Amino acid sequence: MSYASTESLDVFFKAKSIAIYGASASQNSVGQAIIQNFIKPQYTGKVYAVNPKYNQVLGVPCYPTLQAIEEPVDLVVVAVPARITPRVFDDIAAKGAKAAIIISGGFSETGYAGTELEEEVVAISKKHGIRVIGPNCVGIVDTHSHIDTFFLPEYRCGRPRPSNVANISLVSQSGAFAAAISDWTAELGLGISKLISLGNKCDVDDDDLLWYLAKDPTTQVICYYTEGYDELKGRTFFDTAKNVTPHKPVLVVKSGRGQRARAAASSHTGSLAGSDNIADSAYRQSGIIRVNNFEHMFDMAKALAMQPPAKGDRVLMITNGGGLGVMTTDALEALGLVIPSPSKELEEKFNERLPSYCAIGNPIDVVGDTDSSRYDAVFEEAIKSGEYDIFVVGMLLQTPSLNMDITNVISNHQRQSGLPFVVVSMGGGFTTKAGEIMELMGVPTYATGEKAALAAKGLAKYGEIKYREKFNKTFGSDKP
Amino acid sequence: MSYASTESLDVFFKAKSIAIYGASASQNSVGQAIIQNFIKPQYTGKVYAVNPKYNQVLGVPCYPTLQAIEEPVDLVVVAVPARITPRVFDDIAAKGAKAAIIISGGFSETGYAGTELEEEVVAISKKHGIRVIGPNCVGIVDTHSHIDTFFLPEYRCGRPRPSNVANISLVSQSGAFAAAISDWTAELGLGISKLISLGNKCDVDDDDLLWYLAKDPTTQVICYYTEGYDELKGRTFFDTAKNVTPHKPVLVVKSGRGQRARAAASSHTGSLAGSDNIADSAYRQSGIIRVNNFEHMFDMAKALAMQPPAKGDRVLMITNGGGLGVMTTDALEALGLVIPSPSKELEEKFNERLPSYCAIGNPIDVVGDTDSSRYDAVFEEAIKSGEYDIFVVGMLLQTPSLNMDITNVISNHQRQSGLPFVVVSMGGGFTTKAGEIMELMGVPTYATGEKAALAAKGLAKYGEIKYREKFNKTFGSDKP
Repeated sequence: MSYASTESLDVFFKAKSIAIYGASASQNSVGQAIIQNFIKPQYTGKVYAVNPKYNQVLGVPCYPTLQAIEEPVDLVVVAVPARITPRVFDDIAAKGAKAAIIISGGFSETGYAGTELEEEVVAISKKHGIRVIGPNCVGIVDTHSHIDTFFLPEYRCGRPRPSNVANISLVSQSGAFAAAISDWTAELGLGISKLISLGNKCDVDDDDLLWYLAKDPTTQVICYYTEGYDELKGRTFFDTAKNVTPHKPVLVVKSGRGQRARAAASSHTGSLAGSDNIADSAYRQSGIIRVNNFEHMFDMAKALAMQPPAKGDRVLMITNGGGLGVMTTDALEALGLVIPSPSKELEEKFNERLPSYCAIGNPIDVVGDTDSSRYDAVFEEAIKSGEYDIFVVGMLLQTPSLNMDITNVISNHQRQSGLPFVVVSMGGGFTTKAGEIMELMGVPTYATGEKAALAAKGLAKYGEIKYREKFNKTFGSDKP
Repeated sequence: MSYASTESLDVFFKAKSIAIYGASASQNSVGQAIIQNFIKPQYTGKVYAVNPKYNQVLGVPCYPTLQAIEEPVDLVVVAVPARITPRVFDDIAAKGAKAAIIISGGFSETGYAGTELEEEVVAISKKHGIRVIGPNCVGIVDTHSHIDTFFLPEYRCGRPRPSNVANISLVSQSGAFAAAISDWTAELGLGISKLISLGNKCDVDDDDLLWYLAKDPTTQVICYYTEGYDELKGRTFFDTAKNVTPHKPVLVVKSGRGQRARAAASSHTGSLAGSDNIADSAYRQSGIIRVNNFEHMFDMAKALAMQPPAKGDRVLMITNGGGLGVMTTDALEALGLVIPSPSKELEEKFNERLPSYCAIGNPIDVVGDTDSSRYDAVFEEAIKSGEYDIFVVGMLLQTPSLNMDITNVISNHQRQSGLPFVVVSMGGGFTTKAGEIMELMGVPTYATGEKAALAAKGLAKYGEIKYREKFNKTFGSDKP
């Protein structure tokens, strides 16, 4: 699919009128749960139910067919048994709707008969230009338009919110993970724009969404969970990624590193996990950053969404706790980042401005009785020196000598310098709140040195991807 | 120090009367902050202040010297400038108190003059049989006796609580980390018995506390944060550990793996981080489990505190989400655990009792529409088969078909089988609460497959340490 034709996906996220096919008045049914998500006040579009059995479902007007609805319908959510979906798609085609999400299972994931049904639906859709997400998925959550086809009740499965600073969108092959991630990111307070569960990918696939999310102004970082690619679609995806990654960071969690897990993935979704090494090198060549798990993904994505990429890998660590300095430096070094000692000149500047009992070096320890002024002095001199590309700031708030003005000192220096900053602040209640404030001011904050180091690594790695590409364009090289 | 003489440490954690030397009425002083921790209603012993300037401090009676106090004093907390501590210790000796915690800095960590002062204090203490923690530390928090010398206000630095199930004690070289861990574990709700910050270790050291905590009935797992050992004390510590680890798990975070971090550690505490490989092999030989960071430590310690060690490394993973099964299996395999497929016989049993669309294997996927009964069937058959040593249970609660009775099913099978269980439950609000309930029922619960896998690894590893030792004893071998 081409960059231009991603417009056909717009309707999934911006539909002004949505019909729920298979909406049901019977309690605890999927058909009722989905409609419940649409009668929330946040979604401002029109909602229709389709089911010959009812005149209304939970107060939503119900029609026997789509064609019986007088107004136009943008998006159809299909929650009927697999065997009747071809008839439903005839109705969709007749109505002229251009997009459908098939929530129902019972298609290609179940064997031969299901595959035939799926192919029938695809044939109708192709003929009439209907784009399809699914089947066998939970659909999408768009935190801006409030389109939400996840049929799980909010008390069990929280929905994330968009942040004012920067947002992440995530595409998941697995519906259960899409739901768990919705719930988890809601709890974490991570800014999310779109969650998309792809299921069997009978039409819309990873590649389509990569184009779409690359153009989406509300998405700053694109994340994927995948268990594997089929060979042809995989190749297209990696070609697209080469064009996207210099402009927007793309992260992926791909499971199935081990043998056992690969066997499990194959029985779970039928996808061929293939050689993990091949995937690894495809990711590298296309500028996609592969991470080991969702925690790493969220930690890196947060930094990439909030901070500029680094133009090099020279890190300065500043801390008010010696142990935190040592642990974080360990983690930074293990990730291959460079932690250069300050030059003679810079060391002299630090010595002039800090008390003699501070430990000057890298990490630089402004010790436990510090207030924000020592941080201020270190940032000022270190930024002026040009000796560092990334700042990792240890901020232990258990000691009351460090007031909340430290957050202003950090964010001011970050903004004025344009260099990436990452904060590590270990602790509980007060510390957590302070971290939330730090992030509202645009600087990502982590509970451990390892997480902060990973964030710094992400900023350095994406810098390499972004600026390597620029370099290549300027000098006409097409080497990876 | 011998096992018997650990009794002299009892008074640090059980003192019935405590004097704060250097207690101060001036706001924001350490001397005031410490006394503030003792006038909380939870500590039921007697508290005295010592300072010739006042008659009372925050309502606590204040005396010019210890000797002026009529009642006996068990423990003296010293928060006076370093240079006057020898005089203070003369007073402690004259009063006959047997334990002191020196919070103040300005001793051996600052150079030659400080070292002389420290030696003077040690000489007085040795002569009069006074045990000393510190100097240059934040002292201790005992969550049972409520002795709390951390001088940091609770709104900044939360204090953990003991759990009714099982508790961890932690010894930290770094005071800032001890404080941050207090705050963090309070937030996590991890059951803690004792936190001890050792500072310069002029008398009480890692080895003393290893003996003491080994005997402590309120400590189920012993944790350390260290930046290095001096050669002589290190050797004694590892000898002690050989005797302790078959009875109680010991975990350590040792920083300074990398070169840069090692340099930083040396300037921070003056300890020689030494060769990290030597430390690694000493840990292995003495049965101490080394982990990379505090998150890993807390994850493993929680499992070891709550669950019996595993008698082998054969794991069964059961899940209601295919993706979670794949991710967790990946993590288990990466940690070297064995994930055997069920035998033909067991597979038949599973087939009889589960719907045909469940994926039987390892992981075994009881799929998204499950209630607790499929878990029940799998546990029953798998336990009866004797084919597995550890159960890792994926419990995705976003879907309302899985009710809270799953927690009873899990904890009942765990208790009746005596086999170790670990739960992984990804998500937000509801999921977090359910995890807390699961843990009140004694089964450790984690937010990601990687954390659960690490917990399983800890249970297998400690089983190896515990049962290897038993084997050695029986057969008279003393090989590591």
